[in-house]
Amino acid sequence: MKTYFLTVAAIAQLIEGKVVAGNGDVQIAQLASIREAMPGSVTFVAKPMYEQYVYTTQASAVIVPKHFEPQQPVSASLIAVEDPYLAFNKLLEKYAALQSLPTCGVEEPSYIGKDVLIGENVYRGAFSYLGDGVHIGHGVQIYPHVYVGAEVVIGDNTIIYSGAKIYPRCNIGQHCIIHAGAVIGSDGFGFIQQQTGGYQKTPHVGDVVLKDNVEIGANTTIDRATIGSTIIDAGTKVDNLVQIAHNVTVGSDTVVAALTGIAGSASIGNNCMLGGQVGIAGHIEVGDRTMVAGQAGVTKSYKEGNTTLMGMPAVERKQFVEQHIFLKQLQKASASN
Amino acid sequence: MKTYFLTVAAIAQLIEGKVVAGNGDVQIAQLASIREAMPGSVTFVAKPMYEQYVYTTQASAVIVPKHFEPQQPVSASLIAVEDPYLAFNKLLEKYAALQSLPTCGVEEPSYIGKDVLIGENVYRGAFSYLGDGVHIGHGVQIYPHVYVGAEVVIGDNTIIYSGAKIYPRCNIGQHCIIHAGAVIGSDGFGFIQQQTGGYQKTPHVGDVVLKDNVEIGANTTIDRATIGSTIIDAGTKVDNLVQIAHNVTVGSDTVVAALTGIAGSASIGNNCMLGGQVGIAGHIEVGDRTMVAGQAGVTKSYKEGNTTLMGMPAVERKQFVEQHIFLKQLQKASASN
Amino acid sequence: MKTYFLTVAAIAQLIEGKVVAGNGDVQIAQLASIREAMPGSVTFVAKPMYEQYVYTTQASAVIVPKHFEPQQPVSASLIAVEDPYLAFNKLLEKYAALQSLPTCGVEEPSYIGKDVLIGENVYRGAFSYLGDGVHIGHGVQIYPHVYVGAEVVIGDNTIIYSGAKIYPRCNIGQHCIIHAGAVIGSDGFGFIQQQTGGYQKTPHVGDVVLKDNVEIGANTTIDRATIGSTIIDAGTKVDNLVQIAHNVTVGSDTVVAALTGIAGSASIGNNCMLGGQVGIAGHIEVGDRTMVAGQAGVTKSYKEGNTTLMGMPAVERKQFVEQHIFLKQLQKASASN
Repeated sequence: MKTYFLTVAAIAQLIEGKVVAGNGDVQIAQLASIREAMPGSVTFVAKPMYEQYVYTTQASAVIVPKHFEPQQPVSASLIAVEDPYLAFNKLLEKYAALQSLPTCGVEEPSYIGKDVLIGENVYRGAFSYLGDGVHIGHGVQIYPHVYVGAEVVIGDNTIIYSGAKIYPRCNIGQHCIIHAGAVIGSDGFGFIQQQTGGYQKTPHVGDVVLKDNVEIGANTTIDRATIGSTIIDAGTKVDNLVQIAHNVTVGSDTVVAALTGIAGSASIGNNCMLGGQVGIAGHIEVGDRTMVAGQAGVTKSYKEGNTTLMGMPAVERKQFVEQHIFLKQLQKASASN
Repeated sequence: MKTYFLTVAAIAQLIEGKVVAGNGDVQIAQLASIREAMPGSVTFVAKPMYEQYVYTTQASAVIVPKHFEPQQPVSASLIAVEDPYLAFNKLLEKYAALQSLPTCGVEEPSYIGKDVLIGENVYRGAFSYLGDGVHIGHGVQIYPHVYVGAEVVIGDNTIIYSGAKIYPRCNIGQHCIIHAGAVIGSDGFGFIQQQTGGYQKTPHVGDVVLKDNVEIGANTTIDRATIGSTIIDAGTKVDNLVQIAHNVTVGSDTVVAALTGIAGSASIGNNCMLGGQVGIAGHIEVGDRTMVAGQAGVTKSYKEGNTTLMGMPAVERKQFVEQHIFLKQLQKASASN
Repeated sequence: MKTYFLTVAAIAQLIEGKVVAGNGDVQIAQLASIREAMPGSVTFVAKPMYEQYVYTTQASAVIVPKHFEPQQPVSASLIAVEDPYLAFNKLLEKYAALQSLPTCGVEEPSYIGKDVLIGENVYRGAFSYLGDGVHIGHGVQIYPHVYVGAEVVIGDNTIIYSGAKIYPRCNIGQHCIIHAGAVIGSDGFGFIQQQTGGYQKTPHVGDVVLKDNVEIGANTTIDRATIGSTIIDAGTKVDNLVQIAHNVTVGSDTVVAALTGIAGSASIGNNCMLGGQVGIAGHIEVGDRTMVAGQAGVTKSYKEGNTTLMGMPAVERKQFVEQHIFLKQLQKASASN
């Protein structure tokens, strides 16, 4: 792996900071957390509780808040900035860009069907598959083993990692990221119970629509709608191993943590946060700015939003805490009798 | 995407219905739900509570029950049938068939091992892999990036979507559907704890058997048996991201919702319904016609079946409801003191 | 499928046992459990409760403990050993080795980037992908459709099954097994909430390190660290569909069952056992030899370890049982009033 060097002074310039202590000529090759940092690395302190580590870290440079005044001798160079957290994130972005592979060109063998349109500066990895009538925007990256079914449309600058599968006729926005193994557009889980016993499959002729800036985690599955669309709105981030069923709509800038399941035709609002392993029942509506605690099971609608839900069946936080305290007191009272 | 037109009269004929109001010559190009329907689409009303939308829908045609008599003026053409839900499902099937890709032929490059037998009218997508000694029935569809390990047998008319992986020597029935990314036949999670610490792997020389008409969801995993078979019986439907462990047997016409886990050697009966995120402990037996509510954890056998289980640890519905009501009353009584 | 025959006497020799009843020349072709065994198969009895089946099994041979003395006539040949369970496991290993495919050579087409180093006796399946600068040890098996990103290092004798995806710069130890569809090294789920609404992605420039003898289940996902490494220590076994988030560390010889989620920066000790569908909150620490019951949600640290956690929020087993008993008694008392 190649190593990239920048001086402390160059880093300061990059993050619009100022070298306030130590040597600006020191060479930096790595980023690290303050407790694991080795010589040659730059780290940061954002919260007062971590300031103690500035005096003991082995890092060669530390990004500190503007107001920071050392109370003890410091061996590292110090770079002062407005917001060390955002500044370090900027460095991470820079570092990630240096690390990343050439993201253009075609590796062979790859497969292209008929009537495929492909924009400029596109990467298509070996063993990638574009079905008939697919449209690929500019700057799109399609990693090895990706399957793009017929008539799928993919917006500009979207990245699809290895082995993600997109069924026919789905619609992916711009600046989306789809991680390895994610499945977009599989059939919804719909069957009609037969009078003779057994099940008849409901055909799913709808699709999945991901709006712009959506990120989908590894091995997450999103089913296509029976008719119409399963929709993930702009800016929403979905973690790994999440199940989103047919005809679900998830609003914009909502965050869904791993192993959560959203059942068919449920509707989640904007700016919600769903914890890990949450279950959302089918056909219910969860309003904007709802927080759902990990492992909670939401079995009825909370349309008004602006609340926190906990437990199974989920109730509002206040009620959940009351129940909890009540039971504890009861048990304590009983024990002291 | 091509558009297909049918007249209202042609649709009526297709679903054995009768045009009882409006114009039979109107052209229909889409299927839609009654509230989202646009001009040019056909929709349906199955339940009385949705009949109100007949008067306001923008659909050009509505499929209604035979007994339906409009109480207000209706702009859409009406098609009367015995069962609108089943009739609409039939239309969906017709539409799905029109949409679907040519399902025959071979895309290259693809890989075939030695001694492979392949039936007629088979589709093999690019980058699909058939190991040595594989048998493929007639009318089978193998999408791109599918892996079929050595000596696997796949019955007639089964569909295996992109990137599904079938380990060696498993047996897939006829008319099965395996969705993208599903893994059939991985090793069971079995280890022998060593006296010296650490674990020795138990070899898994058994297999997985899917009987006819089984559907397996996207990214679902089914482990092979230690010895013998992990068995999914005929007509059973498994949703996305479900884990079925080694030596499990699931009966016929059972439905398993997403993110459910069934631990090793458990046995699930016929005609059961397991909700989402359910856990079934290892080595237990759940009888026929058992319903398990979402997120329930079944920790002991319910062999007699014909019951509904809820909660963690799961108990029968009656007991669960009693506990719930009891706690609520207790809390209310305490609050009013 | 080929059939392999061994005599009862040969099997006895293989497992360091002694034929103490019946004919040592009988031919054995299969391994089976004692209740499902057919003629021509060998089975075993390890626990006294199963000894009754020795008299009724159809197996041609039964492996029994040294001390076993038949109380009734037995038709099967008997092989006496110190530990029948371990002896049978040895037979399973032998049988698995006979079954397994040739594990050497290259199937085409496959893809190799620049500056790739490959050891001896390696298998590379069709459509496998090795990115630039990858290092592959001796005896490694890379199945079809595997993606190995740039600069990944894979130790000797590791097996990577079909469709597993390893993102760039991750580090896989020796004697590891990674099952089909597993994803190693996807981006952590980290975003910075913007003052203007919406989220900015945190770049993840760290990696994933699997030490030696680690097994990862099918479709499991392990995210790369923001900086530094997500680490799975030696001998640890992870089941199917498990989510391990960025910067998690899991100790050695720990077992994690299916559908469990471990949130970002959590730390799990050595020799722990996590049941199925367990949730571990972010940034907490679970000490060595902790057992976590299925579906439990661990929301705070238990650093001292050596305990069993149950429920949501998880508490120590003693406390969980007390709560449970207390509620039952309360309900009973109330019902009898």
